[in-house]
Amino acid sequence: MTEKELEEKLHKQIPMTKLMELTIVNINNDKLLTKAPLDVNINDKGTAFGGSLNTMNIISSWSLCFLLSQNFKIEHSSIVIFKNETKFLRPVTKDIICHTFMPSSDELYALEEKIKSKKSGSIKIYSQIIENEKVCVDFVGTYVIKDIS
Amino acid sequence: MTEKELEEKLHKQIPMTKLMELTIVNINNDKLLTKAPLDVNINDKGTAFGGSLNTMNIISSWSLCFLLSQNFKIEHSSIVIFKNETKFLRPVTKDIICHTFMPSSDELYALEEKIKSKKSGSIKIYSQIIENEKVCVDFVGTYVIKDIS
Repeated sequence: MTEKELEEKLHKQIPMTKLMELTIVNINNDKLLTKAPLDVNINDKGTAFGGSLNTMNIISSWSLCFLLSQNFKIEHSSIVIFKNETKFLRPVTKDIICHTFMPSSDELYALEEKIKSKKSGSIKIYSQIIENEKVCVDFVGTYVIKDIS
Repeated sequence: MTEKELEEKLHKQIPMTKLMELTIVNINNDKLLTKAPLDVNINDKGTAFGGSLNTMNIISSWSLCFLLSQNFKIEHSSIVIFKNETKFLRPVTKDIICHTFMPSSDELYALEEKIKSKKSGSIKIYSQIIENEKVCVDFVGTYVIKDIS
């Protein structure tokens, strides 16, 4: 799936991702890079709204799980967030840039085996909002991927 | 501050709260009740989007802190979220109803004293999305309230 295809899927199926003007910048083997403009996601202090920041982490991590389910050749998957922990370390003063990291190959192997044997597996996804090389928001979310083919 | 005034403040200062059609239903001594419609906050599964759910908790808890700062007669406050933990226990299948709970009177007293002496204090706020009397999303956030008058 290309960046454009993923972005269109999200904008079509999850209206809030379109309203917040989320874009998929790059997908590669190490991470997923997503972006959203400051103006529509601004708060009363002129910095990025905490709700938008956390939503960027949540949907980017969900998207990474969706890409994984495609790599695993799961025809129909159901992916849900189970829990998350987020630390807001610094205000975000420019457009929101979100880096969502691919799990290790060991974690991916264990996840794929679990889904193959049990039709369901969970994985922790790490996602950060970074500005001027400093982590502003530090997120970890646990997602459950089910094979419902 | 009335429900309508708080809602207008949020819609004006934080555009995402207007785009997600957040409404302030009720403010009382025990809790703040907020709502958002399912349709604009829907996901690929036809249930409420995790990002919208977490945003409801985040902004409702922020709003409760803002109301506290008014109760404390702080003329100009700066309120920021520091961290949160959220558990997504059940899907939300109807309009999102968010209950955000007033801290205990002991906690409020300690917070007010801290702000009076140090110009800054932190507080944990509990917020839940409830449907059919069952907790669907369980959130706790830590907020820092500063007196910048």
